Amino acid sequence: MAKRNLYLDTKPVEEAAELYLNALRPVVTIQYETIPVTESLNRVTRHATYAKYSSPLFNASAMDGIAVISERTVAATEVAPVTLKEKEDYIVVDTGDPIHPPYDAVIMAEDLVETKDGVQITASAAPWQHVRPIGEDIVAGEMILPSRHKIRPIDVGVLLSAGITRIEVVKRPRAAIFPTGTEIIEPEDTPREGSIIESNSRMFENMVIEAGGEARRFPPIIDDYEQIRDNIAKAVSEYDMVIVNAGSSAGTEDYTVHVLRELGEVIVHGVAIKPGKPVILAVVEGKPVIGLPGYPVSAYIGFENFVLPVLAMMGQTALKKNEVVTASVSKRLVSSLRHKEYVRVKVGKVGDKMVAAPLARGAGAAMSLVRADGFCVIEQHSEGVEAGEPVQVELYRDKAEVENTVVIIGSHDLILDVAADMMPNLHPGMFVSSTHVGSMGGLMALKRKEAHLAPIHLLDEETGEYNLSYIRRLFGSGKIALIKGVGRTQGILVKKGNPLGIKGIEDLPGCRYVNRQRGAGTRVLFDYKLKQLGIAPEQINGYEREAATHMAVAAAVGSDGADAGMGILSAAKAMDLDFIPVGPEEYDFAVPLEYLELPHIKAFIEILKMDEFYKRLDELGGYTYERAGERILNI
Amino acid sequence: MAKRNLYLDTKPVEEAAELYLNALRPVVTIQYETIPVTESLNRVTRHATYAKYSSPLFNASAMDGIAVISERTVAATEVAPVTLKEKEDYIVVDTGDPIHPPYDAVIMAEDLVETKDGVQITASAAPWQHVRPIGEDIVAGEMILPSRHKIRPIDVGVLLSAGITRIEVVKRPRAAIFPTGTEIIEPEDTPREGSIIESNSRMFENMVIEAGGEARRFPPIIDDYEQIRDNIAKAVSEYDMVIVNAGSSAGTEDYTVHVLRELGEVIVHGVAIKPGKPVILAVVEGKPVIGLPGYPVSAYIGFENFVLPVLAMMGQTALKKNEVVTASVSKRLVSSLRHKEYVRVKVGKVGDKMVAAPLARGAGAAMSLVRADGFCVIEQHSEGVEAGEPVQVELYRDKAEVENTVVIIGSHDLILDVAADMMPNLHPGMFVSSTHVGSMGGLMALKRKEAHLAPIHLLDEETGEYNLSYIRRLFGSGKIALIKGVGRTQGILVKKGNPLGIKGIEDLPGCRYVNRQRGAGTRVLFDYKLKQLGIAPEQINGYEREAATHMAVAAAVGSDGADAGMGILSAAKAMDLDFIPVGPEEYDFAVPLEYLELPHIKAFIEILKMDEFYKRLDELGGYTYERAGERILNI
Repeated sequence: MAKRNLYLDTKPVEEAAELYLNALRPVVTIQYETIPVTESLNRVTRHATYAKYSSPLFNASAMDGIAVISERTVAATEVAPVTLKEKEDYIVVDTGDPIHPPYDAVIMAEDLVETKDGVQITASAAPWQHVRPIGEDIVAGEMILPSRHKIRPIDVGVLLSAGITRIEVVKRPRAAIFPTGTEIIEPEDTPREGSIIESNSRMFENMVIEAGGEARRFPPIIDDYEQIRDNIAKAVSEYDMVIVNAGSSAGTEDYTVHVLRELGEVIVHGVAIKPGKPVILAVVEGKPVIGLPGYPVSAYIGFENFVLPVLAMMGQTALKKNEVVTASVSKRLVSSLRHKEYVRVKVGKVGDKMVAAPLARGAGAAMSLVRADGFCVIEQHSEGVEAGEPVQVELYRDKAEVENTVVIIGSHDLILDVAADMMPNLHPGMFVSSTHVGSMGGLMALKRKEAHLAPIHLLDEETGEYNLSYIRRLFGSGKIALIKGVGRTQGILVKKGNPLGIKGIEDLPGCRYVNRQRGAGTRVLFDYKLKQLGIAPEQINGYEREAATHMAVAAAVGSDGADAGMGILSAAKAMDLDFIPVGPEEYDFAVPLEYLELPHIKAFIEILKMDEFYKRLDELGGYTYERAGERILNI
Repeated sequence: MAKRNLYLDTKPVEEAAELYLNALRPVVTIQYETIPVTESLNRVTRHATYAKYSSPLFNASAMDGIAVISERTVAATEVAPVTLKEKEDYIVVDTGDPIHPPYDAVIMAEDLVETKDGVQITASAAPWQHVRPIGEDIVAGEMILPSRHKIRPIDVGVLLSAGITRIEVVKRPRAAIFPTGTEIIEPEDTPREGSIIESNSRMFENMVIEAGGEARRFPPIIDDYEQIRDNIAKAVSEYDMVIVNAGSSAGTEDYTVHVLRELGEVIVHGVAIKPGKPVILAVVEGKPVIGLPGYPVSAYIGFENFVLPVLAMMGQTALKKNEVVTASVSKRLVSSLRHKEYVRVKVGKVGDKMVAAPLARGAGAAMSLVRADGFCVIEQHSEGVEAGEPVQVELYRDKAEVENTVVIIGSHDLILDVAADMMPNLHPGMFVSSTHVGSMGGLMALKRKEAHLAPIHLLDEETGEYNLSYIRRLFGSGKIALIKGVGRTQGILVKKGNPLGIKGIEDLPGCRYVNRQRGAGTRVLFDYKLKQLGIAPEQINGYEREAATHMAVAAAVGSDGADAGMGILSAAKAMDLDFIPVGPEEYDFAVPLEYLELPHIKAFIEILKMDEFYKRLDELGGYTYERAGERILNI
């Protein structure tokens, strides 16, 4: 076998980051440039900035009216008005006009009565009334912005008013980004067997921009020691930092760490973090060079923990901190003492508590980052948390958004995505979030007060009735409603053209099957059908192979690893598979009565009654919706 | 007198905004464009986006190791290992490599023992172990982003992995910005008498960019009806919205509202908001045209309340909401029932409560926006709040920053700016905030637990001693420390060259004097000196004219409105004035003992002992600092 480089260190995260920053501080030079103030938004000042001019530049009228000599007005009262003559006793001024001796006060236009001899006033003017003194806002020589200040729109305005037109700021750190790997292709290329579409570098590019840096993304380099070395060496001489993606692990073609040992010093290789362990933190010619793992989630977490602090140091900016909330975790999370673990979670507010529902934990699950509302961080010294225990969640959505989110946990259907898409458009600031744990899992989540709604499709084998008997059994009376959802058709998903000629469940023994997870309504239905037909689970090759959603079943059947799986028509259609109907079923929503009057829950139920919703269901295919949104049970 | 347009409506803020958005909704068209995904950061999606490819694209190894046929491994145990032969029983795979039939599982490299015949395994491999199934992350046809979603770096990555390279997004709304006014000049021009440096348009430009729009700032237009009309009419045909600055009020040359009545429909003129009343909200040819007042604070508040919602509507983005905290207001705020008022405040955490110290309320005080940490909003139906009452503050700094800020209230000195500048550089995340209310005001703030430190310079007329007797009188024993600050020289600031030949306080009667506010240490000193010399306050022309800081006194003396004022040498130096010394004084910091051990308070006191601090004091001029930072009293 080829040489592998199995043994990485696994330094604790904080120790690794500190070690690296300490190695960089003495060698990295902060760079500066002088730019026009008009182009300085979000840039960071080098020095404290002092006003060149005062603002206002002169004593100025604060009102539209007349400038007067205050001592000539002292006698004016309601009963004995004083008449002032233009040019002699007063001049007309608009707001902002200069006030010069002998004038030393302003009377508002509203307080004047015009007469044939001039204007009449009925009260005296105090010296300096309605006059903005020179420098009232800014005095020449005064400090207007401190050093290391990030310039906001109001700062641009004030700098210009104070006569500052150019300003010295920290240069944006420039990062070179190298994707590596023989198997990777560009997004516009047509993927072939074994291809991986390169996308991490584009994520990094945008993360660099968000952190105030400039990014240059280079085309992918193949897994070749010399090519990787030469490209890094050249980039180090031209950029402020270099990011190399993938090849940071211990695989047969992971050259990066060897290249960096040749070119400079590797400070850290391997961090006790999950996902994201194979990180390389190196210094080459006084510049940071960072190797990040290839799995998108590992790459993202590595970037957040190790690249962002370096960019902050070089750009002299503050690291942005996400809001942290305490939430109750909806299922047990086991973690190893060997690493700090970042678990992506969906967060919502149910009743008076925040709940965090863990998403897929795999390092490859980039969609879980898209879907997540935040990270639940399990520290290295912890073995994990039990279901229901409080955890700290770093939010990356606004807390207000999270609080206005309908939390759905239960069976998966594509219509949940449609509702999630429609909600914020119909009700800005309201959202729908769904986690897929199967129908029974959803009802359990309702019982534990971790969700507002549970979508379910559970067949009572005895009555042939859907859903009602299950929630009757699980919830007390006066506790829950069933909101009618949609009718849909379950069936067998097979490859296009049905090459094995499958006609029904009776044909499945002998095929490679992909099943749904325990507790999923589709699995309940499959078990019921097997029993009806007298087929034992052991006769099904792949009965133990579980997929978590209809779409995951469809994907497996679409590949060369499986021949059939049970699921809904819309999933077959989305993946262009053939579909053998098994029977209709009812997909409804269980909702505890206490949530029915919440504005976002009402809004969700209203969506189920909308023509736009039905139009989109028709596009997906295979749905009926006669009574959708109707409340059919209070027990 | 010229015609004025005195009577504006004053619609409540929310009513005005709603009226305007309702007028715009039917006529404004949201525009879209298709752009490369790689350039889509922060853009807003038009439609829901569905995956083109699955990710992974194929069943893939999740580990570095070997791909095996699971049924050939079933017999393997610790005591009876099984040997597998390359090509026949297994192939070597790296993470991400495709797994095809007959292979259906992966064994990690770590679990293999190499032998001369092949590799030995000591445990069976379950079917599909360590295999990432096709579509595990993303399934082709699955919704990856909803409509109206603001694209983040992770979304860019996932879109590309899913084969999406171009995406339809909402076009950035394009705003034309017109500064108007005959008196305004460009920042690079040399100001003359009556000039106002135009800076609002540059602030707007950057606020538009921050809100996700594009801005085109045009050169200033003079106050001329036709020119204003023609420029607006042309811009309306070329841009998505137009912002006209100043000329929105009722002055003699405020043409904007008349122009807009000619060109289109004025929906609102005048809003019950302070500052910011003279706002014009108009629709011309189906496009929003907004006139904003000229005072920078009014302009800013008008933009926030009326332009941002329009940009959000046109760009289909969510309005960013600032965090709101409850704080205790440090002084009485009187407000009128006639308007909603935005009071700029500094916010800090003292003890266990947040305190909000109001800043200058004038509409022209742009620096108060720079210095502020947030707005305290007094609703229209309220007459204001009493000192110590809780108020809601919209923060525009992070709450964490506010909580790590040293809150200084008391006498003004330029050295406070120096410390504020040094603090975040020495201790990232820690800040110094100062509000200037004079020495006595500072001690009162300490008593009310609204500040951590009060800088004071209070002369005891009987003993000639500074500061000690005042804090002894005000605070109980064991409650407070006095931290030595700096020695500085008080004197009379006079114009360059001292044209009136002032030699001392005895020469002030007959001059135009500018005084400091009641409670200021400098005023206490002035009163003491007047008394010593037997001069009555009535003999001082301008005794009642008050300025709030040394710099404000210096600015007044630098203008043609005053001849002399008392202040410190560094202020005279900053404004290039002459200075007649009156005597040295001691500027120290009173600190309640309970705050002395807080990390940010300790950090502040440490700064008082630093060479860099002394170097900067020497640059300011006139300071001594032998015992700075020393604790000289615990009582």
